[in-house]
Amino acid sequence: MVVAAQSLEELCINAIRFLAIDGVEKAKSGHPGLPMGAAPMSFVLWDKFMRFNPKNPFWYNRDRFVLSAGHGSMLQYALLYLTGYDSVSLDDIKQFRQWGSKTPGHPENFETAGVEVTTGPLGQGICNGVGLAMAEAHMAATFNKPDATIVDHHTYVILGDGCNMEGVSGEACSLAGHLGLGKLIALYDDNHISIDGDTAVSFTEDVGMRFEAYGWHVQAVPDGDTNLDAIQAAIEAAKAVTDKPSLIKVRTTIGYGSPNKQNTGGVHGAALGGEEVAATRQNLGWDYPPFEVPEDALNHWRKAIDRGAKLESDWNGALDTYKSKYPAEAAEFERRLSGKLPEGWVSALPTYTPADKALATRQTSEKTLNALAQAIPELIGGSADLTHSNLTLLKGFPDFQKGSYAGRNLRFGVREHGMGAICNGIALSGSGLIPYCATFLVFADYMRAAIRLSALSQAGVIYVMTHDSIALGEDGPTHQPVETIASLRAIPNLLVFRPADGNETSGAYKIAIERRNQPSLLAMTRQALPNLEGSSFEGVARGAYILSGSDDLPEIILIGTGSEVSLCVQAAEKLRADGRKVRVVSMPCWELFEEQDEHYKNAVLPKADQKRLVVEAASSFGWHKYSGSEGAIVSIDRFGVSAPGNIAMEKFGFTVDNVVAEAKKVLG
Amino acid sequence: MVVAAQSLEELCINAIRFLAIDGVEKAKSGHPGLPMGAAPMSFVLWDKFMRFNPKNPFWYNRDRFVLSAGHGSMLQYALLYLTGYDSVSLDDIKQFRQWGSKTPGHPENFETAGVEVTTGPLGQGICNGVGLAMAEAHMAATFNKPDATIVDHHTYVILGDGCNMEGVSGEACSLAGHLGLGKLIALYDDNHISIDGDTAVSFTEDVGMRFEAYGWHVQAVPDGDTNLDAIQAAIEAAKAVTDKPSLIKVRTTIGYGSPNKQNTGGVHGAALGGEEVAATRQNLGWDYPPFEVPEDALNHWRKAIDRGAKLESDWNGALDTYKSKYPAEAAEFERRLSGKLPEGWVSALPTYTPADKALATRQTSEKTLNALAQAIPELIGGSADLTHSNLTLLKGFPDFQKGSYAGRNLRFGVREHGMGAICNGIALSGSGLIPYCATFLVFADYMRAAIRLSALSQAGVIYVMTHDSIALGEDGPTHQPVETIASLRAIPNLLVFRPADGNETSGAYKIAIERRNQPSLLAMTRQALPNLEGSSFEGVARGAYILSGSDDLPEIILIGTGSEVSLCVQAAEKLRADGRKVRVVSMPCWELFEEQDEHYKNAVLPKADQKRLVVEAASSFGWHKYSGSEGAIVSIDRFGVSAPGNIAMEKFGFTVDNVVAEAKKVLG
Repeated sequence: MVVAAQSLEELCINAIRFLAIDGVEKAKSGHPGLPMGAAPMSFVLWDKFMRFNPKNPFWYNRDRFVLSAGHGSMLQYALLYLTGYDSVSLDDIKQFRQWGSKTPGHPENFETAGVEVTTGPLGQGICNGVGLAMAEAHMAATFNKPDATIVDHHTYVILGDGCNMEGVSGEACSLAGHLGLGKLIALYDDNHISIDGDTAVSFTEDVGMRFEAYGWHVQAVPDGDTNLDAIQAAIEAAKAVTDKPSLIKVRTTIGYGSPNKQNTGGVHGAALGGEEVAATRQNLGWDYPPFEVPEDALNHWRKAIDRGAKLESDWNGALDTYKSKYPAEAAEFERRLSGKLPEGWVSALPTYTPADKALATRQTSEKTLNALAQAIPELIGGSADLTHSNLTLLKGFPDFQKGSYAGRNLRFGVREHGMGAICNGIALSGSGLIPYCATFLVFADYMRAAIRLSALSQAGVIYVMTHDSIALGEDGPTHQPVETIASLRAIPNLLVFRPADGNETSGAYKIAIERRNQPSLLAMTRQALPNLEGSSFEGVARGAYILSGSDDLPEIILIGTGSEVSLCVQAAEKLRADGRKVRVVSMPCWELFEEQDEHYKNAVLPKADQKRLVVEAASSFGWHKYSGSEGAIVSIDRFGVSAPGNIAMEKFGFTVDNVVAEAKKVLG
Repeated sequence: MVVAAQSLEELCINAIRFLAIDGVEKAKSGHPGLPMGAAPMSFVLWDKFMRFNPKNPFWYNRDRFVLSAGHGSMLQYALLYLTGYDSVSLDDIKQFRQWGSKTPGHPENFETAGVEVTTGPLGQGICNGVGLAMAEAHMAATFNKPDATIVDHHTYVILGDGCNMEGVSGEACSLAGHLGLGKLIALYDDNHISIDGDTAVSFTEDVGMRFEAYGWHVQAVPDGDTNLDAIQAAIEAAKAVTDKPSLIKVRTTIGYGSPNKQNTGGVHGAALGGEEVAATRQNLGWDYPPFEVPEDALNHWRKAIDRGAKLESDWNGALDTYKSKYPAEAAEFERRLSGKLPEGWVSALPTYTPADKALATRQTSEKTLNALAQAIPELIGGSADLTHSNLTLLKGFPDFQKGSYAGRNLRFGVREHGMGAICNGIALSGSGLIPYCATFLVFADYMRAAIRLSALSQAGVIYVMTHDSIALGEDGPTHQPVETIASLRAIPNLLVFRPADGNETSGAYKIAIERRNQPSLLAMTRQALPNLEGSSFEGVARGAYILSGSDDLPEIILIGTGSEVSLCVQAAEKLRADGRKVRVVSMPCWELFEEQDEHYKNAVLPKADQKRLVVEAASSFGWHKYSGSEGAIVSIDRFGVSAPGNIAMEKFGFTVDNVVAEAKKVLG
């Protein structure tokens, strides 16, 4: 009996390996290589360091664990099962990658309790980890007292070569170094193998040196396959360094234990196959049938349950002490964790009348953000180095910097993609923080993979995107969004707003703040817009509404968004002066309009009225859904051009006269 | 007279500064700070090193110059004007950022001869530079002979803090270090200022150390404002290192010479204003009126014309020698530079009949790429570490690696964004090279900013994107494109193909290869598809065509793309068995269909027939344009799910029975 030769630790580690091997084998799909190689470091981390409560995955002060190399998802499912989470049973592991299972191909926070963030697209998880660590630092700086600590946890990340090759990880890790996030500890599964084989074909940089350049504390564990003591010592050393994030480069063998496939690309992303599974069992002395974990190992792993119960109980004690000493702060802390917004916050939102000065929506956004900053202390965010263009500074509040983590103005640098991924981490931190981030709308392209993950993983990030059309002018087509709005509307579960004026801006922020399980993206103008008669705070919540001309059935409906609504209003006046019956519909958010019932939708855009003119200074792509069978679209179906904004708008047909002329064509 | 105190070099440098200052001032828009600070290094580079011919901006063996910090465009326009390019006159500089000018807000290769690539979106230019250097290395390795060199030029890049913060630059620079691109020399305008002010707020990493970690040769010039000798020595040293790319960190003062604004964020992106312009003139002793360049300076700068004529003439001599020694190679070299494709290449494209085995379109793509590799030696490309999933290896050809630059298989690593930007550089290198690059379709999001720039800058990159729907299966929603195709169709000037089978794959590649001023993106399946009766190589060129049921006016038109065309074919058979008149339209490329005349469009999708059913395993977004006022769309308007691909397709309604049922609903 070979098993006798295995130490308890080896048994525990091999339990991870064989759950992964067997799960992938049964699914005939998945990535066994990473779990097999990263099992030792995962055992050390989860058994000796990670503070968590399997029976309450949402205990706030838990350490966060992110598997940035999300394709190794079976590693995470094995850990959750072994440590006693209810979210992953042995049956769930047997259902790996099947329809309706709790064990999808990549870790999904919205499917599986215990999974903090959704990973798989490489590089995202480590950035989420930076966001989680920032959230911890902010909450600790905000709530902890010299004599009472209630926020104190680490964020651990396992990342691989792929994560390290992706630029997004470099962005966030550079910022993490700048910020000195001492409680962020990343274990780099350095196995020298990616899907194309040996990383020698494309990735020969000195990763450790790069992280040192970022300002990280860097260590190496040359034998991550068997030297558990070295892994443990490295994590201990990393924890001891409190003013820098830590990278531990753990040299491992991908697919460790598979006699014919370890250390090859072949073990990365495919099942081992029956023969090799048998050979691996033989090689590692694993006599147990598929999905069976030896009792000794399971008993040891499951000690996490008692350990976790005690950790949470101790923390509850600390929180009670805190409550008695600092009742107001404790109440605020609990309010935030509950996700309940402060009483009366909605009344902070600015309102406008047509008499108010014309403002760019980036300016009404600035007013709104600053009003909300006072009313909602959990609002935190910033811009990718365009603070004074995006107008996103929370005035009177300090920066979030090393040594001043209570600050709420985040300085992301020119790192859009990292910014989005960091905000996903903040949004999913369980801290109640509401992150916003900003750049020019066209640079949504740089961060699109993070925006998609906000939508998929139900992270309520608020994207403040200014300079939303060719009207930004001279910067030219590289900076002028044309197709950008359409490309964002196409993303499921993302609310895309293009407010027409101040009231609509407030209305958009109201929804964006409320929807904590859904990201919102607000497209704002660079140029000033009048405050419109009839523009409606409440109307925004319905996605589209009748701004004027509601009394009777119109001959034509003008549909506008954002800066073009005022054009529609002026065109409607001219058309009405000609005796035409014209309705103007403002449509700040397609997705909310689609949420309405058929009655409301038909009241705003009656099926019977197919003469419609859509006016939007962007691509027509997607608008045929609303323009009607007898309608038309004033749009821009080419790239823009460098010229003053008003000239560009005029040349592309965004004038009252042209809208009137196009409307007359539709009227026939 | 202050001018007397200035050396000729100072005059030449200040000429750049004041053209930039005056140009921005007249436009009341632009970025004077970078040109003022980077003028000294630019003078040294362009006056003492750069080999180019102002009277022939397209001379092949010129050194390439990329202003990666594209917002400093006036620097480049000043250089082009001063050195005597016909593309930028003094009048053009006065028209900076105006409608129809040759001097747009950011450098645009398609507007201004002498501008190699389109920059402005930060980080892209340095990656383009990597691509340009790779193109040079490949051409040199392919054509140079021990006794005859015809390809030998450098690529110089000026990049700023913003470029260095963007992750995309890290991706490409890591690869450049790996590849040892010795002829790539980047000057880092290290001015410590970005739009948000001092880089100390967000960017404190050690950039030089990071580039050393990438394997670059790194130097520093501590005084880049006045120490021209140090700049010159550094560039000389960089040229002497031939096995590594070089970074020269040049410490400069942004807005140098502006007494009240230099070294502040205020000089980054706004005109100085009249008073400060006057103060700067005073400070730098510049007594000339706006837009006047002193004769001594202009005469010196314009020596570039004679120098350039001689450089090109010498090269023509070398080329003549080469022609006489190596006539076949010379003919091939000239063919490539002319952009003429090899005779008969089209016949290399595979053709299929319905009797042929069902193949995934990623497999027919593999066959096509490999057939084209034999017929078109200028085809070069690879995958972002998914070679054996994307099936993009050119079999029998070596890798492009350090020491084997003649190889045509590029190994990008997990660096999608850098890959796209590198391919833009290759496509715009003037070498005739046709770059392709590959990843999973969903990861188009990672590289979208580069794809957009392909489209804008008319770079004929071929994007090979596999795993194009939920049918990829188990990897789940992080990997399943849903909205991706729509988001790409929205990009102007990008051809998006979704071929239905082998013949359509060949048809798509035919167009993609031919269109050298337009990028193409091919979306390919993971799963096998039958070769369809009636599928048409030629039909692809028209974007959409009648695949079956063309004889008379149908009762319903089924419109499919890619993997769903075969579903439509099977559904049509069932419907016809019920006595229905059904037409099946395959629509592999919307953009090409839109290029057709109204007659053709109406023949395929008659305006009179509005009963249509679109079937595409993706978002319905955009399809209402074609689905008709009485039509419907079988689509997926939510994220996918982890499950075997056939199960996922079935659950989401992509079955023959469901298509038949939906068609019957449309028929009423």
